[in-house]
Amino acid sequence: MPNDTIYLDNNATTRVAPEVFEAMRPYFCERYGNPSSIHRFGGSVASEIEKARCAVADLIGAKYRNKDGNATEIVFTSCGTESDNTALQCAVRAACGKTKIITSAVEHPGINHYLDELARQNYEIVKIGVDGQGRLKMDDFRAALDGNTAVVSMMYANNETGTIFPVAELCRLAHEAGAYFHTDAVQAAGKIEIDVDRDQFDFLSISGHKLHAPKGVGVLFARRGIPFTPLILGGHQEKMRRGGTENVASIIALGKACQMAKAALPDEIRYLASLRDAFEAKLKASIPKIRINGDLEHRLPNTASVSFEDIEGESILMLLDQFGICASSGSACTTGSLEPSHVMRAMNIPYNAAHGTIRFSLSKYNTQAELDFTAEKLVPIIARLREISPYWGK
Amino acid sequence: MPNDTIYLDNNATTRVAPEVFEAMRPYFCERYGNPSSIHRFGGSVASEIEKARCAVADLIGAKYRNKDGNATEIVFTSCGTESDNTALQCAVRAACGKTKIITSAVEHPGINHYLDELARQNYEIVKIGVDGQGRLKMDDFRAALDGNTAVVSMMYANNETGTIFPVAELCRLAHEAGAYFHTDAVQAAGKIEIDVDRDQFDFLSISGHKLHAPKGVGVLFARRGIPFTPLILGGHQEKMRRGGTENVASIIALGKACQMAKAALPDEIRYLASLRDAFEAKLKASIPKIRINGDLEHRLPNTASVSFEDIEGESILMLLDQFGICASSGSACTTGSLEPSHVMRAMNIPYNAAHGTIRFSLSKYNTQAELDFTAEKLVPIIARLREISPYWGK
Repeated sequence: MPNDTIYLDNNATTRVAPEVFEAMRPYFCERYGNPSSIHRFGGSVASEIEKARCAVADLIGAKYRNKDGNATEIVFTSCGTESDNTALQCAVRAACGKTKIITSAVEHPGINHYLDELARQNYEIVKIGVDGQGRLKMDDFRAALDGNTAVVSMMYANNETGTIFPVAELCRLAHEAGAYFHTDAVQAAGKIEIDVDRDQFDFLSISGHKLHAPKGVGVLFARRGIPFTPLILGGHQEKMRRGGTENVASIIALGKACQMAKAALPDEIRYLASLRDAFEAKLKASIPKIRINGDLEHRLPNTASVSFEDIEGESILMLLDQFGICASSGSACTTGSLEPSHVMRAMNIPYNAAHGTIRFSLSKYNTQAELDFTAEKLVPIIARLREISPYWGK
Repeated sequence: MPNDTIYLDNNATTRVAPEVFEAMRPYFCERYGNPSSIHRFGGSVASEIEKARCAVADLIGAKYRNKDGNATEIVFTSCGTESDNTALQCAVRAACGKTKIITSAVEHPGINHYLDELARQNYEIVKIGVDGQGRLKMDDFRAALDGNTAVVSMMYANNETGTIFPVAELCRLAHEAGAYFHTDAVQAAGKIEIDVDRDQFDFLSISGHKLHAPKGVGVLFARRGIPFTPLILGGHQEKMRRGGTENVASIIALGKACQMAKAALPDEIRYLASLRDAFEAKLKASIPKIRINGDLEHRLPNTASVSFEDIEGESILMLLDQFGICASSGSACTTGSLEPSHVMRAMNIPYNAAHGTIRFSLSKYNTQAELDFTAEKLVPIIARLREISPYWGK
């Protein structure tokens, strides 16, 4: 990271950890063989992939190993979106005959746009709303759930507010109704503890680049015993569940990143939450009319969603950018729209606050000094923008 | 590459070129921003992706640029298989109402397995056979082609024999019948000249790791004006044609690899063909009862498919492996089967020859010395295996 950049956009993507880069590095120009090859030069790579698979399984508590010791419930994909799409396809095919899908109103486009396609195939999509703190309306969920429900897909933690859904409880209720349960854990994996065996999830999605592995690799956890319908059809790779030559270097990288995340998790949770909480406290003390969005009791430790009333988030971002401070409004996957994000709208955040919402998302590489600098710079930025805002003081 | 390895399996995968690695390297730990981000740290990466897109377009003769100068006919995917799947889905949806798909009997699993799925959706799949040299039976093709044909999908060059199909002619005939034309150019791109504008292909697939870019990145060329149906549905990336955060480093790498391939193409074609031809000549002079498979007039310059009669290919490979020589029998994407490959069967190669078929596939990194060494080692290997073969001399 250039020294003049303060990167507070880690829910959009993260720096590849130097240790992760070193782990993947030999697989480009030296150990570049195809793991499907018969010769040792390629074949030896296959066992490294299996080690990475076990490291991923360890991070999320997937204890099953087959007779060869491989964590076969882990399927490597190209990204979280592919994992999401695949999970939904698998679940609706496995629940053959059932036509309802229940999700939340605040999911990622990787879920929403695939569900649009399933709606065209005559599935009934029920989106459960959230309250003003981003908490799922559990009564609405219970009311929607029935024997015709093929799958419940609920994100583990929200990318914009960090709000953590009660996925264990949602999964239990889904199973009681005979439905499969999928959770998009792209923002949760590596940031909070996940235990797929304890919570009995059927499908769970991970994206490498959200936890200091590179872009272009993801994971679908798919519980053994559930029929699998591949999204990408080709060779025998991933036990016939995902065609295409394995993205070897990135898979090795993801294994290393998962191993590192698991080892450091309790410490990082404490470190990030303390940085984040101090940052929020400083903002609240020095800037009037702001609100912190999300479920403050159940939130990712690294995420602060802050609404600065009566100004435009994009203007704040551009002025922060002049100081090398990187943050975001809403999700990087839904940019291009000037409307408040679907997450803010689902939470019924007032228009004048939703428009001025900034997401600060931290990583272990951030320091107290960076956040202090950011908080200091925000004070005059917000004051200046409010001076020229036609809404301020009205 | 370790000095003790002679890598002759470049149709399975290639070494990432050191220059390509250097080009991608900053995008892991330094320029790791999300190209969709508003801040310059992420946003500046987006323009690098567009440069890579133009480099890919330049390699395959796709001249169209939109008003921003971007080669929007190039869609980045995660692999050749995803490109193949996407092309077929796009074509059959665009040719709404037509129910026939014509392909060859020697395609890659990325085509074959997706067509199996389309067959379950009641599409009629017609697979055109090849002759003993792997040449497409053109009369059968003309007879199959009709107004009900949605798409013709024919590989550019075969992965096992290197045989080049007359794709320009096939595309012209497909268009005359009102069908779309897709070509899986995974083995051709970077090895021979491709010109999508001259030949008017509708869709063309490329895989990065076959031309010295990393595994985990591919390209689908999709001619503008044809309705596009994404396979992976998520964010707005790739102009809504492929969801998921862009695999930035690998895309930059692929751009560099395409630029290098284009600059060196005529020289490399001469170099590889001369290495390969000398190698084949040496084998023919020193080992009895061998055959060179494929269309010797129209072949990739880097590929030698050699059948050693009356012995098992796997045994040859294992003995070569002891000298650090990497080659393959059939495709790396169809290993695990002891049957001769579907390509050898389609060519009606006699059983005793098909079983002893080895593919030697070269790259610019191979040397005359490596091939001489391989040819020398093969003589006693083949002799020894024939001695113990129950079929030899029968």
